[in-house]
Amino acid sequence: MGNKNLDFLFRPASIAVVGASAVPGKISSIILESLKNSGYGGKVFLVNPGYESIGKERCYPSIASIGEEVDLALYAIPAAGVAESLREAAGRVKGAVIIGGGFGEAGEQGRAFEKEIKDIVRKEGVRVVGPNCMGVYDTVSRLDTFFVPAERVKRPSRGGLSIISQSGSFAVTVMDELAAEGIGVARVVSYGNRVDVNESDCLDFLAADEHTKAVAVYMESVDEGRRFVESASRCSAVKPVMAVKVGRHDAGVLAARSHTGAIAGRYEIYRAAFRKAGVIELEGYEDFMDACKAYGTQEASGGNRVMIITDGGGMGVSIADACSKTGLEVPPLSADLADDLRSVFPPYFSVSNPMDLTGSATDALYAEALEKTMGGEGYDMAIVAALWGPPGLSDGLPALIAEKAGLYGKPVIICSPGGEFSREKTRLFRAGNLPVFSTPESAARAASALAGGAKKVKANG
Amino acid sequence: MGNKNLDFLFRPASIAVVGASAVPGKISSIILESLKNSGYGGKVFLVNPGYESIGKERCYPSIASIGEEVDLALYAIPAAGVAESLREAAGRVKGAVIIGGGFGEAGEQGRAFEKEIKDIVRKEGVRVVGPNCMGVYDTVSRLDTFFVPAERVKRPSRGGLSIISQSGSFAVTVMDELAAEGIGVARVVSYGNRVDVNESDCLDFLAADEHTKAVAVYMESVDEGRRFVESASRCSAVKPVMAVKVGRHDAGVLAARSHTGAIAGRYEIYRAAFRKAGVIELEGYEDFMDACKAYGTQEASGGNRVMIITDGGGMGVSIADACSKTGLEVPPLSADLADDLRSVFPPYFSVSNPMDLTGSATDALYAEALEKTMGGEGYDMAIVAALWGPPGLSDGLPALIAEKAGLYGKPVIICSPGGEFSREKTRLFRAGNLPVFSTPESAARAASALAGGAKKVKANG
Repeated sequence: MGNKNLDFLFRPASIAVVGASAVPGKISSIILESLKNSGYGGKVFLVNPGYESIGKERCYPSIASIGEEVDLALYAIPAAGVAESLREAAGRVKGAVIIGGGFGEAGEQGRAFEKEIKDIVRKEGVRVVGPNCMGVYDTVSRLDTFFVPAERVKRPSRGGLSIISQSGSFAVTVMDELAAEGIGVARVVSYGNRVDVNESDCLDFLAADEHTKAVAVYMESVDEGRRFVESASRCSAVKPVMAVKVGRHDAGVLAARSHTGAIAGRYEIYRAAFRKAGVIELEGYEDFMDACKAYGTQEASGGNRVMIITDGGGMGVSIADACSKTGLEVPPLSADLADDLRSVFPPYFSVSNPMDLTGSATDALYAEALEKTMGGEGYDMAIVAALWGPPGLSDGLPALIAEKAGLYGKPVIICSPGGEFSREKTRLFRAGNLPVFSTPESAARAASALAGGAKKVKANG
Repeated sequence: MGNKNLDFLFRPASIAVVGASAVPGKISSIILESLKNSGYGGKVFLVNPGYESIGKERCYPSIASIGEEVDLALYAIPAAGVAESLREAAGRVKGAVIIGGGFGEAGEQGRAFEKEIKDIVRKEGVRVVGPNCMGVYDTVSRLDTFFVPAERVKRPSRGGLSIISQSGSFAVTVMDELAAEGIGVARVVSYGNRVDVNESDCLDFLAADEHTKAVAVYMESVDEGRRFVESASRCSAVKPVMAVKVGRHDAGVLAARSHTGAIAGRYEIYRAAFRKAGVIELEGYEDFMDACKAYGTQEASGGNRVMIITDGGGMGVSIADACSKTGLEVPPLSADLADDLRSVFPPYFSVSNPMDLTGSATDALYAEALEKTMGGEGYDMAIVAALWGPPGLSDGLPALIAEKAGLYGKPVIICSPGGEFSREKTRLFRAGNLPVFSTPESAARAASALAGGAKKVKANG
């Protein structure tokens, strides 16, 4: 299947909202609001036999009655009515997103409904995303089918990260958190029960998508295992691909089954598939978020050697522990570099890795430490932990670190734990496009994800 | 040694600040500010031969010249001058906190300074905390010797959690974060290079301290291994004791050595000691914070069986995975409980564990799920994940959950990931004294810490 097959989803020229309603708060009303907020520029048709118009918009009794071809039909009607409507629409729409639940995840009747949809896909050639999903949020095509109100869930700005998620709520939460962190996305797709369009289809599209710089995948199970490895391999050859597979432990496996009806399978098989496909393996929600924040602002590192710069010794030790745990290296300073640094630093600084600038830290000393260590060949990236206790640190520190970070083309990750004062300062780091993490472990997870991209690039080239 | 030996530290009637200065921003000036802010009610003497007075306060040339006995001397002078001053003060003070660095962590000269201090402790019987430490923050005695300005690092309110930390910056960061989370502490002590007072002394004091309900320990190394096991065992017999040992991995071990001069040792030995002493083992900064937030608001659970209630299926699966990973159980519903719930819930709900209330979740449904599952014998605690997408959820949800949580004496932990809207709501949960975590993994770590306390209590009787 070519990429163009998903144009109905990522580049639709027209959309029909089936089940459009005049009642505020209904799923279809929220979707219409989302579409409007996203700035979608194509045609939007409302479909509901119960209305002649909604507000000032004409309402069609059926897709057939629209009288022209529609790229994308969004189904926001009860499960029992979807198959009949979709059968009628086949040939008139390129594809559909079936938003609502009540299908394979919801007992015998639901499974029967889902089988009907599958039959229509096979016989009529219409492509379907879902059911039991959120659809697509796309900053490139300015498209948003997510049925969560904007005042509850913020949408991320435009960026280079694309996300493929089997779970709608997972995608929503990640989007909301990225928006709060000021990190943008290219395209997000929630595909739910996956009667047709699956993770491999999406990977094929995103591999060729120039707007997507990195791909993150959330899966509870895989649809076509062999094809996934092929699609992920092709995609990871040209951009970092990372994936979390949940339902790993006994409790999670059972939960995944009742969530999207998926049989979650043994984790070892997924791990082997990820390795074979050059996919960066993520451990769970935390790891997923940390990796998204890393790739939303940084590119893959050239290797896994981390320099740690801090003004709190205990924080330095904790970051070093966390790095070692994720398989990162924290190499000691070379003798030359140590001599060089000792010549400019006070004698009570710990000139080593981690480098502890102590309570005497100043903006200039951070800059010096970063320049001297990132400027050489010994390190692939830096984790900079700025605890804001030392009086020598000013609001100029984040911009200075961002400036130095820009000089060497190596990722710089900020670890800024603490309370109100620290949290307030994070926006200064974000303004410099530096990703900020509130624990040593999350900073290390981010660094590890960036190093995972490095390994892949090396292996492929 | 009896507990009274640490009264100089936790209950001083008078304090001398050696190195008091009229220059704002100097360490001693910040300490004086901290003492003042804490509301310390005892006598405070300023000592510095360079001044006759500082502001309106008289300044003494030496501790001897004060003319009365002083409980606690705080040294905020350069390392080179401490031994001479301490020798002169011995017999006139019960104990000292040596704040500044430049000792065992800072090369040959520093090690010589530190040895001098040790000799004075041994010969003169004066007790010493530090050097290279922050001293004590104590909401019971209203005492604060931390040299970090209040505008940069907030102090927690009064609570039942006490913290023993080898690292000052670690203690500061944890305090700041607890303050931001609205979680109180009883006593926090940072003991740094530990020439005399060590973790075992502090554990002995806190075991008998009625204001301390739980103890968290951060260590890079242990001083007296056998005594630590004894002291920790005695303390953990009467209240939960948890500990993180950093410098676990190669990089961290080296970093710990250059931080407090401690030889960090093989982790397996620490793990065995923790187990023997009934100490809850924490994995790093993240785990430490999560456990502190848990014990700052909840008591140990009666066991390790977790009920998960959510309105997002993917989040439920992720929490189940995270629970299994930390060794918690997520048992399925009993047949009776499932039937009972099915009779009140819509048919498309996933009546299982995790329980998915879906996008149709309402405040009342959360309350119903919590009551029915916590009311029975099947579960020891609940993790409640509230994603704020569903329009049926109101600002009344947190108070309702807090009310139901109070009925059964079982811990209820909130998992509330997401962006601005969710973050804003966390204060509603906090108002109900429910601990809030922003990832499935952190909620599971908190639950695991509470279950760790359960195991200990059972093992002990």
